Amino acid sequence: MFNKRTKIKTLLAGEFVGQDVTVMGWVRTFRNNQFIALNDGSTNNNIQVVVALGMLDDATLKRITTGASLKITGEVVASLGKGQKVEIQAKSLEVLGDSDAEKYPLQPKKHSLEFLREIAHLRFRTNTFGAVFRIRHSLAFAVHQFFNERGFVYLHTPIITSSDAEGAGEMFRVTTLPMEGAPRKEDGGIDFGEDFFGKSTNLTVSGQLEGELGAMAFSDIYTFGPTFRAENSNTTRHLAEFWMIEPEMAFYDIEDNMNLAEEFIQYLIRYAMKHNAEDLEFLDQRLAEEEKQKPQAERSEMGLLEKLRFVVDNQFERITYTEAIDILLDSPAYKKKKFKYEVKWGIDMQSEHERYLVEKHFKKPVIVTGYPAAIKAFYMRMNEDGKTVAAMDILAPGIGEIVGGSQREERLDKLEQRMKDMHIPTEEMSWYLDTRRFGTVPHAGFGLGFERMVQFVTGMGNIRDVIPFARTPKNCEF
Amino acid sequence: MFNKRTKIKTLLAGEFVGQDVTVMGWVRTFRNNQFIALNDGSTNNNIQVVVALGMLDDATLKRITTGASLKITGEVVASLGKGQKVEIQAKSLEVLGDSDAEKYPLQPKKHSLEFLREIAHLRFRTNTFGAVFRIRHSLAFAVHQFFNERGFVYLHTPIITSSDAEGAGEMFRVTTLPMEGAPRKEDGGIDFGEDFFGKSTNLTVSGQLEGELGAMAFSDIYTFGPTFRAENSNTTRHLAEFWMIEPEMAFYDIEDNMNLAEEFIQYLIRYAMKHNAEDLEFLDQRLAEEEKQKPQAERSEMGLLEKLRFVVDNQFERITYTEAIDILLDSPAYKKKKFKYEVKWGIDMQSEHERYLVEKHFKKPVIVTGYPAAIKAFYMRMNEDGKTVAAMDILAPGIGEIVGGSQREERLDKLEQRMKDMHIPTEEMSWYLDTRRFGTVPHAGFGLGFERMVQFVTGMGNIRDVIPFARTPKNCEF
Repeated sequence: MFNKRTKIKTLLAGEFVGQDVTVMGWVRTFRNNQFIALNDGSTNNNIQVVVALGMLDDATLKRITTGASLKITGEVVASLGKGQKVEIQAKSLEVLGDSDAEKYPLQPKKHSLEFLREIAHLRFRTNTFGAVFRIRHSLAFAVHQFFNERGFVYLHTPIITSSDAEGAGEMFRVTTLPMEGAPRKEDGGIDFGEDFFGKSTNLTVSGQLEGELGAMAFSDIYTFGPTFRAENSNTTRHLAEFWMIEPEMAFYDIEDNMNLAEEFIQYLIRYAMKHNAEDLEFLDQRLAEEEKQKPQAERSEMGLLEKLRFVVDNQFERITYTEAIDILLDSPAYKKKKFKYEVKWGIDMQSEHERYLVEKHFKKPVIVTGYPAAIKAFYMRMNEDGKTVAAMDILAPGIGEIVGGSQREERLDKLEQRMKDMHIPTEEMSWYLDTRRFGTVPHAGFGLGFERMVQFVTGMGNIRDVIPFARTPKNCEF
Repeated sequence: MFNKRTKIKTLLAGEFVGQDVTVMGWVRTFRNNQFIALNDGSTNNNIQVVVALGMLDDATLKRITTGASLKITGEVVASLGKGQKVEIQAKSLEVLGDSDAEKYPLQPKKHSLEFLREIAHLRFRTNTFGAVFRIRHSLAFAVHQFFNERGFVYLHTPIITSSDAEGAGEMFRVTTLPMEGAPRKEDGGIDFGEDFFGKSTNLTVSGQLEGELGAMAFSDIYTFGPTFRAENSNTTRHLAEFWMIEPEMAFYDIEDNMNLAEEFIQYLIRYAMKHNAEDLEFLDQRLAEEEKQKPQAERSEMGLLEKLRFVVDNQFERITYTEAIDILLDSPAYKKKKFKYEVKWGIDMQSEHERYLVEKHFKKPVIVTGYPAAIKAFYMRMNEDGKTVAAMDILAPGIGEIVGGSQREERLDKLEQRMKDMHIPTEEMSWYLDTRRFGTVPHAGFGLGFERMVQFVTGMGNIRDVIPFARTPKNCEF
């Protein structure tokens, strides 16, 4: 067994003074041929290893460079240095892997996020990305724990799909046909009958419709998987491949749905605050420094930790779409013609409108309900007024839409009528309609974009910095 | 709020006698116009609801059919019926959704698995699939809990990839180019520079290589995501889309790797045995009945629960590939020429060989190590003998290979040589080689096919019956 070691997180949290331990990790810095800051990724904190003068020959000392990997055994002693309770007095040191200081791209200095994005395979080794991806892990675990505690069944809905009815966006084709000389039908069109699945297939944009099938048996299910949009959006908020969480609950109305979504978001934030306190403090300071570079007017009113505390300590604001439009029409921004896009009942609110509501007007997350049917998907439940649907979007400060959901239309006749109105073929969707034919029940669900949630909790401004390897237009590295 | 109800699992586990409760669910059976067996998916057990004679009019009674959804309020009373401690004396009953008994495909009788596969959108409502997918949920949660407890970081490796170096199998193309009239380069070839990502892209076959990048920063990471094979395999063991778990650990050798994999599998089984006892009992009986239909010689020696207990109570057998070949050559099966495929050192063992080892010879899970380099992937660490690699496969009774893993080749010169020998372009993989250039460390990892694990725990013979919506050649429904 090679791996008999103590992780640095364990070491820093425990009572090891006077004991011999073995640690393994990568050198962050090496000062005065004596002090090694070693990191193993279990925490952002390094352990300081003290090498007695004369213990190592010059050749070995030269190999202790930033990025090199070491195996060190020594005694844990109380540290006199500031910011650390303990350090290790090395008794033996082995260089496992060298790192040529001339060539190693990560030097012990500040690198730009843009540069680090280009070396995404190495950026995990920085403090910023170490913190971001440990928090991402925590949030993912909290997602599963939240639903597991509540008896939800985790359902793996399909990634490759022949259905394109959700209409959530442009899709990627999945095929094994040759791009040149694909087989043809008699009428000259491509013969997808010859494709792997015997039909035309795409990458999923949502697991919701399949999720509903599960909810009609297990009562409560959730998905957590990758979803795809083939949209040419080069923004800080869009990815072609991202992860989404989609719970779907039988016997829920729109109010139950809002309650669950709010509880869920607060649970995730509390979990990270409890389990990633150090990483959040680091990111809080990082963001504060970033903000200092901005002009006064563009700076956030709250720091990262302050914002997170505020969100878990306060209820989300709940307003109707109609109220939202009234607030916008009554706003100084509208009156001073500061909005680029039109404001009137019936519009699909733009980012600038949503930001005004959450960042200027309410200064906290807002749940908007009762959207015009015309701008929402076919499966959303029609309200009594015949013109709005029981949809809900949750808007978060700095992020915009973080959750989209609705009570689903459980009435077969109304659903079929709406599908016809929206030119969605009911025959192909017969399996979906079966849930309304056989024991239909009021039900609801929502989708949470996982990366947007990670952005919200970490304060990272660009969505490409919260997913390990971003897929965006013209970019598919690693 | 609509959803003020008590879930049936909670009701059956708690002390509710004398209290009024509201339950919601779907009718499984309705006997004598009096006894409703109601199920809400929280457990395979139904709650019996007793409707007093004369309480409901005839029209309502007729609507209480198999599959209909009901909302019932009533008092919980001790039950005289066998197999149930409590039942509900209905005080009010509302039919939420009808289910036409003439048309509902799920009748209260035994349906074949083949038939249920065709109505996969409804099969969740059966006892068998209710049990299978609740266990699948539990196993998925246990995966996350196992790694979270051990400080592993959950890494979402990319689904769309431009790398095809792993060579694990045929890949699906992902594209937004038109299938007819795709843009051409000057030399006449398809111009993938015009494709969404500016190059040719595929669905991933493994997240391992990206996982290694994470391990070189966080020490321990794992993936749990969908992977794809465009192989025309119409078997009970293959899917075109399946979920895989791939942990990757820095500072691990092959022995550490084996220890972790064995501990992991036993942990998953124990978790299901603890949290899904009722579902496993049901599946144990289901399998016993299925086995009875087989000729004596083909029946399993152990029942499902017996097998699971055996696996968690006993260490896995560990042998080398060379020992495995010797056992096969020395076997009665070989001597009687019962093997269809050749046996000699150097072969890629076939299913019949693996089954002999685990089912006939050792009768328990077996870890085979030290495979010939020639039949294994480029990234596996070369052993001192220069002809075998530090690979390991775990073979399970009734399933075959359930885990494949290895210590990775961390020595840059040896890795580059092997890539050259196997015609893998080193320039394109420069990001991967960087982990060996900068602070390389001994490391290892493995992949567990999640559906095979679910098969093993549930005893389901066909892999299509343990994933919600199977994707196989010429099949992409729902």
